[in-house]
Amino acid sequence: MFDATRERVWQAHTDPRLLAQWWGRGNKLVIERYEFERGGHWRFVEHSDHGTHGFEGRFREVVPMERLSMTFDWDGMPGHPAVTTAAFEDLGDGRTKLVSTMQFYTPGERDGMLNSGMEGGMNESYVALDALLAGMK
Amino acid sequence: MFDATRERVWQAHTDPRLLAQWWGRGNKLVIERYEFERGGHWRFVEHSDHGTHGFEGRFREVVPMERLSMTFDWDGMPGHPAVTTAAFEDLGDGRTKLVSTMQFYTPGERDGMLNSGMEGGMNESYVALDALLAGMK
Repeated sequence: MFDATRERVWQAHTDPRLLAQWWGRGNKLVIERYEFERGGHWRFVEHSDHGTHGFEGRFREVVPMERLSMTFDWDGMPGHPAVTTAAFEDLGDGRTKLVSTMQFYTPGERDGMLNSGMEGGMNESYVALDALLAGMK
Repeated sequence: MFDATRERVWQAHTDPRLLAQWWGRGNKLVIERYEFERGGHWRFVEHSDHGTHGFEGRFREVVPMERLSMTFDWDGMPGHPAVTTAAFEDLGDGRTKLVSTMQFYTPGERDGMLNSGMEGGMNESYVALDALLAGMK
């Protein structure tokens, strides 16, 4: 749940200038490609003290203010894409519920991603997103 | 089973100049990208009388002469990748067995691909590959 309107939460997820401010959790994020439409490609490269990590995929569903789905392929396991889907729900009173899921082909791929530290990274990203949304008011 | 050595069958699957001669089944095939290594990208565009079809993906496993695996995303269902894997087995006497599989995330995606006429297209491709291999002797 975010203390921000659905429009703001949607913007933060789809405007590359805003994405660059929270997705990397304080690390430099270079958005190499962001073709925001069904079938378009995206590629982000995160630069941290521990090295460089590339992520990329293709948009499969773009329903403005409602649903956003894309493939997600990490350079560390190339060719093993997951599918991320985010659903945006307006709760009224300037609050928004975000239901974000990540589907994997196999349990092994899921575990590989979890063991890479992804869960902690996502939580840090959401903390950064909270701060960004608070600043957008 | 192909009446050609494993080296020839491998070459026909991995040399873009040779791929362009059979993959498109007589249609013009433009190989826009072919980064032949784990993590590299590929993109083929087939031009036929019925229109243009793009296909792309990322190499996930490249074991020379033995195994080749990649994601396969058709522009008609973008962001719904399948995984193709080909295993090359030397049968001796200049013959090679090829076991080619295509895995989908969901039955619906499998059926969508089959209904697109893909199975007939693949059979036509293999006829064209047979002819190419015969000419390489």
